[in-house]
Amino acid sequence: MRNIKLVIEYDGTNYHGWQAQPDVLTVQQVIEEKIEVMTRQRAPLIGSGRTDSGVHALGQVANFRTAANIPVEGFLKGLNSLLPSDIAIQSAEEVDLQFHAQYGAKRKTYRYVILRRESPSALFRHYSWRVRGPLDLPAMEEATSCLLGRQDFTSFQGAEADTEDPVREVFRAGWSAGEPGFLHFTIEAGGFLKHMVRNIVGTLVEVGKGRISPERFQQILTVRDRRQAGVTAPPQGLFLVEVRY
Amino acid sequence: MRNIKLVIEYDGTNYHGWQAQPDVLTVQQVIEEKIEVMTRQRAPLIGSGRTDSGVHALGQVANFRTAANIPVEGFLKGLNSLLPSDIAIQSAEEVDLQFHAQYGAKRKTYRYVILRRESPSALFRHYSWRVRGPLDLPAMEEATSCLLGRQDFTSFQGAEADTEDPVREVFRAGWSAGEPGFLHFTIEAGGFLKHMVRNIVGTLVEVGKGRISPERFQQILTVRDRRQAGVTAPPQGLFLVEVRY
Repeated sequence: MRNIKLVIEYDGTNYHGWQAQPDVLTVQQVIEEKIEVMTRQRAPLIGSGRTDSGVHALGQVANFRTAANIPVEGFLKGLNSLLPSDIAIQSAEEVDLQFHAQYGAKRKTYRYVILRRESPSALFRHYSWRVRGPLDLPAMEEATSCLLGRQDFTSFQGAEADTEDPVREVFRAGWSAGEPGFLHFTIEAGGFLKHMVRNIVGTLVEVGKGRISPERFQQILTVRDRRQAGVTAPPQGLFLVEVRY
Repeated sequence: MRNIKLVIEYDGTNYHGWQAQPDVLTVQQVIEEKIEVMTRQRAPLIGSGRTDSGVHALGQVANFRTAANIPVEGFLKGLNSLLPSDIAIQSAEEVDLQFHAQYGAKRKTYRYVILRRESPSALFRHYSWRVRGPLDLPAMEEATSCLLGRQDFTSFQGAEADTEDPVREVFRAGWSAGEPGFLHFTIEAGGFLKHMVRNIVGTLVEVGKGRISPERFQQILTVRDRRQAGVTAPPQGLFLVEVRY
């Protein structure tokens, strides 16, 4: 048996997220089907974690086990020729049989892209959240700083989530300017709760709009109550950038 | 009669370019139809110039004349609510009746986006040209410098073009790094011949690959012979950025 690790970029626009579900198109399921075409055997593809409907990935990581004697270069080229063009394998390598893309993930980096513009964007509509009006960036940065470290992120967990342990460690979180008009939020953590990045970004934008003070943002985190946080930022601005093992 | 100037962003992926043609979907025609819905009169929409099938615009400029008594804010909001989401009006203003988006254009800026990567890209496949292998950027920059000034650009004109005067003035042309992995070519000129930017970029990439020397690039420009230039870069990397009047 061999264990193959894939790094995958995908445009999430036309998918119901990563995880296979009945009756809808998901990234995991499409790749599993193409692996089956190549190996003539169905193998579960283990992803580092789920991404929501409409969320993109630059570097999702997944692995599958196979008895097929296909070189890794063959998987890279073969899968890319079989897959639709909105899913692209970036690398394929043979790894230790113990490697598990979900359980082995040590750090994940997400980026959230905000487009500051009054009018709708034709080109970036699927790849950003358009935010109108002024934003107080220093206030947003002040609030962001309290995300660092090992904390209970219950307040930023998705309403329907049922994670047993809501404690996560954030190693890095900050804002940077992208191309003119764009604002990037980058966050690296040991793991994320469901909707955590989108709830953090949505609440930080309310800080930027002056509706929530940085002090109040800190309190929201402390009270561990999902109902205190702000809006959930829409999925199309979110990109899974990297998973480290 | 009033004259309305629009600044338009569009994702060219699903259009056969700007200019209205029978039996295919074009950006001009879609906007003309929505103006007709609003004003109840068909008016020709005059663009600053054509863009090819698959080429994008961040700031295409167009104008139309109308007797309708709709405020410009009404055109901005109304058209954006009627248009498909891959066409977005960025501004609408009332201008002098003499204003003509094509004849009045003084300078245009185009950007061409290259993605340097070995594997296909899922996210940027419609918005860049993926170029594999090393590129000699100093050689490309050296060749680029000879584009500046008022010159005969016959060598970089589309094969089937029939422009009477192939002389154009280039004010600015250069390469810059975008997000990691991206390379941007920006060129500003008084006007462009058909396929001129794509032929220049395709030939400059051959300079970067060492197939054409910077000296040879200069010669190609001088001989005024379309057959001497390199490949035509694909349309999806090209963006019309700005038109100045």
